[in-house]
Amino acid sequence: MTAERTGALAPGATIGILGGGQLGRMLAVAAAQLGFSTHVFCPDPDSPAFDVSAHYTVAPYDDPRALEAFAADVDVVTYEFENIAVDAAELLAATCPVRPGPRALEVAQDRLNEKSFLTGAGVPVGPYAAIDDLDGLKAALQHLKTPAILKTRRFGYDGKGQVRIDDANDAEAAYAAIARAPAVLEAFVPFSREVSVIAVRGANGETAVYDVPENVHRNHILHTSTVPANLALATRQKAAEIAATIVRELDYIGVIGVELFVIETGGGELLLVNEIAPRVHNSGHWTRDACVCSQFENHIRAIAGWPLGSVSRHSDAVMTNLIGEEAEDWQALAGENNCCVTLYGKREIRPGRKMGHVTRLQPLTKAPC
Amino acid sequence: MTAERTGALAPGATIGILGGGQLGRMLAVAAAQLGFSTHVFCPDPDSPAFDVSAHYTVAPYDDPRALEAFAADVDVVTYEFENIAVDAAELLAATCPVRPGPRALEVAQDRLNEKSFLTGAGVPVGPYAAIDDLDGLKAALQHLKTPAILKTRRFGYDGKGQVRIDDANDAEAAYAAIARAPAVLEAFVPFSREVSVIAVRGANGETAVYDVPENVHRNHILHTSTVPANLALATRQKAAEIAATIVRELDYIGVIGVELFVIETGGGELLLVNEIAPRVHNSGHWTRDACVCSQFENHIRAIAGWPLGSVSRHSDAVMTNLIGEEAEDWQALAGENNCCVTLYGKREIRPGRKMGHVTRLQPLTKAPC
Repeated sequence: MTAERTGALAPGATIGILGGGQLGRMLAVAAAQLGFSTHVFCPDPDSPAFDVSAHYTVAPYDDPRALEAFAADVDVVTYEFENIAVDAAELLAATCPVRPGPRALEVAQDRLNEKSFLTGAGVPVGPYAAIDDLDGLKAALQHLKTPAILKTRRFGYDGKGQVRIDDANDAEAAYAAIARAPAVLEAFVPFSREVSVIAVRGANGETAVYDVPENVHRNHILHTSTVPANLALATRQKAAEIAATIVRELDYIGVIGVELFVIETGGGELLLVNEIAPRVHNSGHWTRDACVCSQFENHIRAIAGWPLGSVSRHSDAVMTNLIGEEAEDWQALAGENNCCVTLYGKREIRPGRKMGHVTRLQPLTKAPC
Repeated sequence: MTAERTGALAPGATIGILGGGQLGRMLAVAAAQLGFSTHVFCPDPDSPAFDVSAHYTVAPYDDPRALEAFAADVDVVTYEFENIAVDAAELLAATCPVRPGPRALEVAQDRLNEKSFLTGAGVPVGPYAAIDDLDGLKAALQHLKTPAILKTRRFGYDGKGQVRIDDANDAEAAYAAIARAPAVLEAFVPFSREVSVIAVRGANGETAVYDVPENVHRNHILHTSTVPANLALATRQKAAEIAATIVRELDYIGVIGVELFVIETGGGELLLVNEIAPRVHNSGHWTRDACVCSQFENHIRAIAGWPLGSVSRHSDAVMTNLIGEEAEDWQALAGENNCCVTLYGKREIRPGRKMGHVTRLQPLTKAPC
């Protein structure tokens, strides 16, 4: 099947996916449903995504020969996590398109780059300071006050690489706790709720934004995402505008997750961006059960140069992650009415490990914005 | 993860699927989404289902050693087509459960068995006669009149193995056209429309029936399935009752497709069963896009001993098959609003070949029955 010079990848082309976890797995399934072949690259021989992928490579992410062979076998490369070394991304990009592109990786891999980018784009973020040494941390604590959160610039996720500082005298211990890594100190933001925006931008700039979910975390791990969020319509629209600004400024291709804090003020709801994830996002998993086209399919459509699918929502939804042994409840969950069960095929249950999720559907209570 | 003695297969178990076409492919995806591993058995090395399956075997369906090895590797066997030799099914069943069971195969593989079974179960079918020789055919034509349809008892699908007889003098030519195979002569049924019922029965007898689609064929191949069908509520309920009777009488486990003719009479709509398919069915493909739980997932749930998922419908839907080069329209279809595109990953377009399907969704126009 031919693409008639639009640059779209024809069915039968091969989508390369870096990372073989549950996000890679759900991307591989979405790609297959559009008629694509898939090739998953992951160091873990037990990767869940391998089970639904036509081809796979088991190799470290910094193995140049394996990366070259992978790039030669696929028509586009995407990834399920943002900590791809820029070297690896450049090596791949020499052979085939890498989407989202290197700019998104540079920004999202480093909290300081991320905050600078967002500020530069006119997107609201909370007060913060770059931390390069203990003296800098002490000075920043004077300025931003306590409580504050010290976060490593790189390699943080699900609460890893961060420590809360309640007393400025704890600066040294806190800095030791993050191994004196380059960091960002974030002022405590008195947010009432957390929400996110899942947006997608196509290769031609077309952009679509899913309805905003409200997210609840437990132990720094996402617990539930609920749509519709209990937000003013203007706030939901503002969140969508923020996401649209971010993807436009990054010249982004694919799905992005933007996490936001909601602060109640006398004048209404104020939004601050917490962080961005240049990939499909846990808080968008409900889209597969509650929308015409899921975040997974829309990511594949975008990176393949296809038109975007409809993000419209046909149901209200509450997505709940199954963490660790919560996945043992599969029988009861499978017996619940209107409960969509997804399990990731991970062979071993471990505390804190994302094993699956459920989406509980209800008829629409109001028209999505 | 354990099944706590309910007999349900735990996530991580392996589902064996005979047949690697699009139905096997969509079953494998559904199984993976519930956390199962899959093993697809098919003679064709280019089988579309292999691309989304953890394991596969390329071997003929009558290769006993390959079948034995397959049975030893899986926890349950199911199939995407009903022409499994009974010998093969019995060989597999000696090692692990085969679902749906052998009774469903015996009935569905042979049009005469099927009609005898349906009649015995009190399910309405059109007038028919068993044909074993030319004299029998001539006698049956006297009785059933022309036009009539002569169909081989075995191996018919998508209009293959059947011939229409408009004149009793053509009996000999018609019989030659089906290679003088054991056959059934069916009286012409003056139906106005064709509908189907997709039903599912769990291992514990729990039964659920999807809303009835109206089906339109072109060149003996399904063209569209539309829900809701334009049928009286009582007729839809009657169709559901017929399907429930069939699965109960067969002690069936899994999804079944029941094709029916609708005849308009002075007293209302009359239903006659045309044929049954002991598997997921093309006229149920819209369930993946328009229902909480698809026919594919419900088939896997049933054969794995899980509770059934909700068959409720959140959208109106029109499913259209993409036959042969119709799949070349993928770009335009992907750009249509509220149009869910599924392509089967078949490497070669051939006339009459099912390459994919689309489901066009609309908000519910009335509550499903």
